[in-house]
Formats: sequence, C-alpha cells, structure tokens
Amino acid sequence: QRDTLARCRCQDEGTNVIHPNRIQRLEVYPPSASCPNVEIIVTLKDNRGQKCLNPESKFAKNYIKSAIKKRSAE
Amino acid sequence: QRDTLARCRCQDEGTNVIHPNRIQRLEVYPPSASCPNVEIIVTLKDNRGQKCLNPESKFAKNYIKSAIKKRSAE
Repeated sequence: QRDTLARCRCQDEGTNVIHPNRIQRLEVYPPSASCPNVEIIVTLKDNRGQKCLNPESKFAKNYIKSAIKKRSAE
Repeated sequence: QRDTLARCRCQDEGTNVIHPNRIQRLEVYPPSASCPNVEIIVTLKDNRGQKCLNPESKFAKNYIKSAIKKRSAE
C-alpha cells in the first residue's frame, strides 16, 4: 500500500484547518488510478505556496459547504 | 455590474451537471477582489479541457459533499 500513496499529491493527511482569508483556491482531486484518496490542495494567497487540507476535517467540510452555498460576496 | 464580472473566470453560471467519471479535478475559487462570485472550474479527463460548474446546482453540491465524505476508493 505504501507505493500507491507515493503517487498521491499529499504524503500525509494534511492540515485540519487553514484560515479562510488565506485561501486563494482549493483543488479537489477525486480518487483516481494514480491515487486512491480524495485529495484537497489549497493554494494560499500572496504566493505563500500550497498546503494539503485533510478532507475529513470539520473545517474542510464546513468551508466547502459554505463556499457552494454562498451565491456571491454581495 | 457588468465590468466586475468581466474579470471572473466564468462568464456565465456554468453547466449544472458533469458526469463524475469525466472529472479529473475541481477548483473552487471563493469570492475575491477580482470576482464577487464563488466559481467552480472542472478539469476534464483525457485533456478535454475545462468547464465552469454552477455552484448552485444540485449536482455540484452533491458531488462535492460526496467527495469530502469518501475517505478513499478502497
């Protein structure tokens, strides 16, 4: 099982919380031939790189649900 | 309001449904200075390009919720 994870983008579960204001973009990768896990990769604002976000974390679930509920910022 | 939307990635609401098997990646852009809307951009498998997905569509909500529920494919 070890080698399958080697081709995943995230080598660990990822962080459980990221401050929403720091999030520029969120990428969700469904399970695929190259990686059996759902992976969420957050791109941080101000060119501060990327972080893996734990799809199981309460923050991830709540953040994504609120993002798809929010029609727009106005 | 027209010009604000001009800097959004999606120039219309986007499609309401995309067959899950065609989805390689999903990008969620929260509202930002450049675009007041939540935008979801799907990258299709087999280099078939990208599509805007309507964040308000039932499919988008269900697909994303199931993606973050599913621990992994096994």
